Amino acid sequence: MIDFLSKLPGFGPRSARRAALHLLKKPDQLLAPLAAALADAASKVRQCSTCGSFDTIDPCAICAAPGRDETIICAVEEVGDLWAMERSGVFRGRYHVVGGALSALDGVGPEDLNIGRLIDRAAQPHVQEVILALNATVDGQTTAHYITDRLSHLEVKVTHLAHGVPVGGELDHLDDGTIAAALASRR
Amino acid sequence: MIDFLSKLPGFGPRSARRAALHLLKKPDQLLAPLAAALADAASKVRQCSTCGSFDTIDPCAICAAPGRDETIICAVEEVGDLWAMERSGVFRGRYHVVGGALSALDGVGPEDLNIGRLIDRAAQPHVQEVILALNATVDGQTTAHYITDRLSHLEVKVTHLAHGVPVGGELDHLDDGTIAAALASRR
Repeated sequence: MIDFLSKLPGFGPRSARRAALHLLKKPDQLLAPLAAALADAASKVRQCSTCGSFDTIDPCAICAAPGRDETIICAVEEVGDLWAMERSGVFRGRYHVVGGALSALDGVGPEDLNIGRLIDRAAQPHVQEVILALNATVDGQTTAHYITDRLSHLEVKVTHLAHGVPVGGELDHLDDGTIAAALASRR
Repeated sequence: MIDFLSKLPGFGPRSARRAALHLLKKPDQLLAPLAAALADAASKVRQCSTCGSFDTIDPCAICAAPGRDETIICAVEEVGDLWAMERSGVFRGRYHVVGGALSALDGVGPEDLNIGRLIDRAAQPHVQEVILALNATVDGQTTAHYITDRLSHLEVKVTHLAHGVPVGGELDHLDDGTIAAALASRR
């Protein structure tokens, strides 16, 4: 139990021991329900064959939702990014989870990512726009360039998220690149 | 799943989401084994009726071990402290888990702790020494005083862990209390 807990992100042997004792102290309120929830997730949660997100149904709830805009696909690196977009509650189109970013250093090539399926989806006649909501990192931007390239022969608009000052952010705490981008995109 | 993960010590909603995605990415190597390990622990791990530690057997492996010294009982606050003592590999006696420390602030009284059973065990004729390995905090020391008092009518030696400079510790990083204690106990 401690061995497997120590494999959680941010956990080491010490925090895993602490978590194990915490769970063992409340077997009925914490340990058994957590075990059941994890077993439930292990048996029921699958990757959506359309967008690559996680859900208990395939296609996932977002791909299957009738009310969402079919004409826009938002490409994100990870499912966590999709969840972050959904929490903002603003985007009402469809998603595509690329599954990471290209990285020469980590040996991640295009064939390791879920990009081919994105090109296929973007080629469908009803799709008008692909938003590349990839991380503003070197790898994320490399991936965005690569996908833009692959989409260039299609009749589809390719857009990126705007760079700028985070809402509530203080200028003094921002890096120079962000300030330069915010200045260049001023409106 | 995320709800229950967020109840782990040191976890909040954000780290719980991260952990959930980490587990879902490797359902067969991480998620299912963790679920099985937790379910196993939930069904098998019990508190030892003698010392209060956790084990799959009762009495626990340490209480049942024939090779350990029956004459010394080391009282600790929590099972984690027992594990820390065992990792040091030096103590070969028995343990008693008090289950916390007296705290007027948190409303923890003697009846909330596993102290009565410790007094009973210390009263057995073969027990010669009780080591109070409680935390060097105000609550821990209050508890130590209380237990010392309860043991005073018995023919048993009551000892405490030594205070001093931690092995590998630098004087410059130590608080004044520790330096004063280390000076007073110099040898």
